[in-house]
Amino acid sequence: MRGAVIHGPRDVRFEEREDPRIVEPTDAVIRIAAACVCGSDLWPYRGANPIPRPTPMGHEYVGVVEQVGADVVTVRPGQFVIGSFFASDNTCAHCRAGFQTSCVRKQGLDGSQAELLRVPLADGTLVATPATPDPSLIPSLLTLSDVMGTGWFAAVAARVRPGMTVAVVGDGAVGLHGVLSARQMGAERIIAMSRHADRQKLATEFGATDIVTERGAGGVERIKELTGGVGADAVLECVGTGESMRQAIQSARPGGFVGYVGVPHGVQIDGGEIFRTHVGLHGGPAPVRRFLPELIDLVWRGEINPGRVFDLTLPLSEVAEGYRAMDERRAIKTLLRP
Amino acid sequence: MRGAVIHGPRDVRFEEREDPRIVEPTDAVIRIAAACVCGSDLWPYRGANPIPRPTPMGHEYVGVVEQVGADVVTVRPGQFVIGSFFASDNTCAHCRAGFQTSCVRKQGLDGSQAELLRVPLADGTLVATPATPDPSLIPSLLTLSDVMGTGWFAAVAARVRPGMTVAVVGDGAVGLHGVLSARQMGAERIIAMSRHADRQKLATEFGATDIVTERGAGGVERIKELTGGVGADAVLECVGTGESMRQAIQSARPGGFVGYVGVPHGVQIDGGEIFRTHVGLHGGPAPVRRFLPELIDLVWRGEINPGRVFDLTLPLSEVAEGYRAMDERRAIKTLLRP
Repeated sequence: MRGAVIHGPRDVRFEEREDPRIVEPTDAVIRIAAACVCGSDLWPYRGANPIPRPTPMGHEYVGVVEQVGADVVTVRPGQFVIGSFFASDNTCAHCRAGFQTSCVRKQGLDGSQAELLRVPLADGTLVATPATPDPSLIPSLLTLSDVMGTGWFAAVAARVRPGMTVAVVGDGAVGLHGVLSARQMGAERIIAMSRHADRQKLATEFGATDIVTERGAGGVERIKELTGGVGADAVLECVGTGESMRQAIQSARPGGFVGYVGVPHGVQIDGGEIFRTHVGLHGGPAPVRRFLPELIDLVWRGEINPGRVFDLTLPLSEVAEGYRAMDERRAIKTLLRP
Repeated sequence: MRGAVIHGPRDVRFEEREDPRIVEPTDAVIRIAAACVCGSDLWPYRGANPIPRPTPMGHEYVGVVEQVGADVVTVRPGQFVIGSFFASDNTCAHCRAGFQTSCVRKQGLDGSQAELLRVPLADGTLVATPATPDPSLIPSLLTLSDVMGTGWFAAVAARVRPGMTVAVVGDGAVGLHGVLSARQMGAERIIAMSRHADRQKLATEFGATDIVTERGAGGVERIKELTGGVGADAVLECVGTGESMRQAIQSARPGGFVGYVGVPHGVQIDGGEIFRTHVGLHGGPAPVRRFLPELIDLVWRGEINPGRVFDLTLPLSEVAEGYRAMDERRAIKTLLRP
């Protein structure tokens, strides 16, 4: 089969790879129906993470089960499935508490930008849709594998409740899905922080009521102005830098929560600041497996359409252009079809 | 009147001070029935905080209202009252959200180790007891002014629920009250971290089921052993050092919360660590005003007896010995009677 392999910074190739196969009796192999490029894939692409050897890329996926190992009982060949970007057994204490991305047997998944993918711990990782989906649903179902589940977790972790004012730091796909999630959870006012017209437009379509273009102290000041000096009831931190975290903490009201899902790069938090301000923090790698049944249902019934973040669709063979378009900010998110 | 005044490190004097009087129409003046020495009073006592001029001491108090300003409506002369260590209006947005220690009009209170005390914003700060209390209740009522309210907030902020396993870092009065609070909230297993026999004994009487004497990495390891490798469902951080905060974070299970009430001294939190571990953080200066009605009721009905933390009672005139005994760890907490 063929798939995307990164050989070095800005060097992603579509090339022949060995077919994935069942290794453990808990594995499944799925035929990819759609995959995509994640913001986090840009870290190695831009040379920020080392690439010691050619590495298969991609961890977001939907597809049809081809084969299952002898111990797999919850999915069977022919079913259309979605899975988390981390494999989990969904039975350990951490999984049962709803934190499958802290599973004691968790495994990263790589190589979904391909025709076939091996998924370990298939029973704990994959969820089948009620039937083979209409093709129009596939982009939205694909987002549940990572970005929409991550935006949803940001809102859950920030304790978003009906009637709240919610601020969202970050206008990538996860931030935009954070807006959509806050709206779905009944937030009354949603302040999206964005400087890009295309993203502002999508944020508004997803439910943002206000756009703030200022960053840092200026952004905090605008949030305070918009909330009568009080601050936001909940803040979704979807970037992962020290600056974005400070901005999120300072935008929250006393007792409000920051849900942080931006993968942290050198973030240090001043204990004195969160003490004085009464701001709560909760986040981490989103346990998207927890949310899959509920989110599949919302997509299936047409209640949410998170797939609108895809503004570029390419054949899988043009994966390199998919990376380039995102790297150059010509696209918010690239969908790939084998 | 007479009261405690600090003149320099280890120099607390009981001396003549001007009688407090009504300054603002929202003030009350109360005659102190009992006051005490707080762990935080030891910071200036030990020279860790500067003392630019002789300063009245004490912020914990119960007493009888002597006088009220023209605008005070909820308390009247003759009533026995308890108030928070911070004055708050209890009407601003932050107070209404239950974070009275972030009140937009908050004021610190100093000088309760005296015969009389001026309390600003009396309507928002003081709560009257149902009647004049039996003298045996006074120590417990006094703790509600700060330490018991702070231990309670630690448990609230750590999201303690019935059946949980709770770890408490810190065996001062606040930590001991954290144990009592977790017990009252239905925790099934309460692990107190303490190296001192007298505090271990009181922790056990307050409801601790396990004692851990190790600190740092060793303490974390013991918590993991005691919880089958999972970690505590909730951790109460009642110290405020970088080491105690790290220990608290590492003792919690993924998705568990640290309720932190130890006043931070140079605490830096690694964003990467709380991201990877899914541990939530919430805390700050305890909004004890929020909890006063409920806690007064629990003390009044004899359900809790937090006053047992006082293991030394002195006449107010011997306040200097009260500081010495706590500084030298001869006493957990000193009660002072005018």
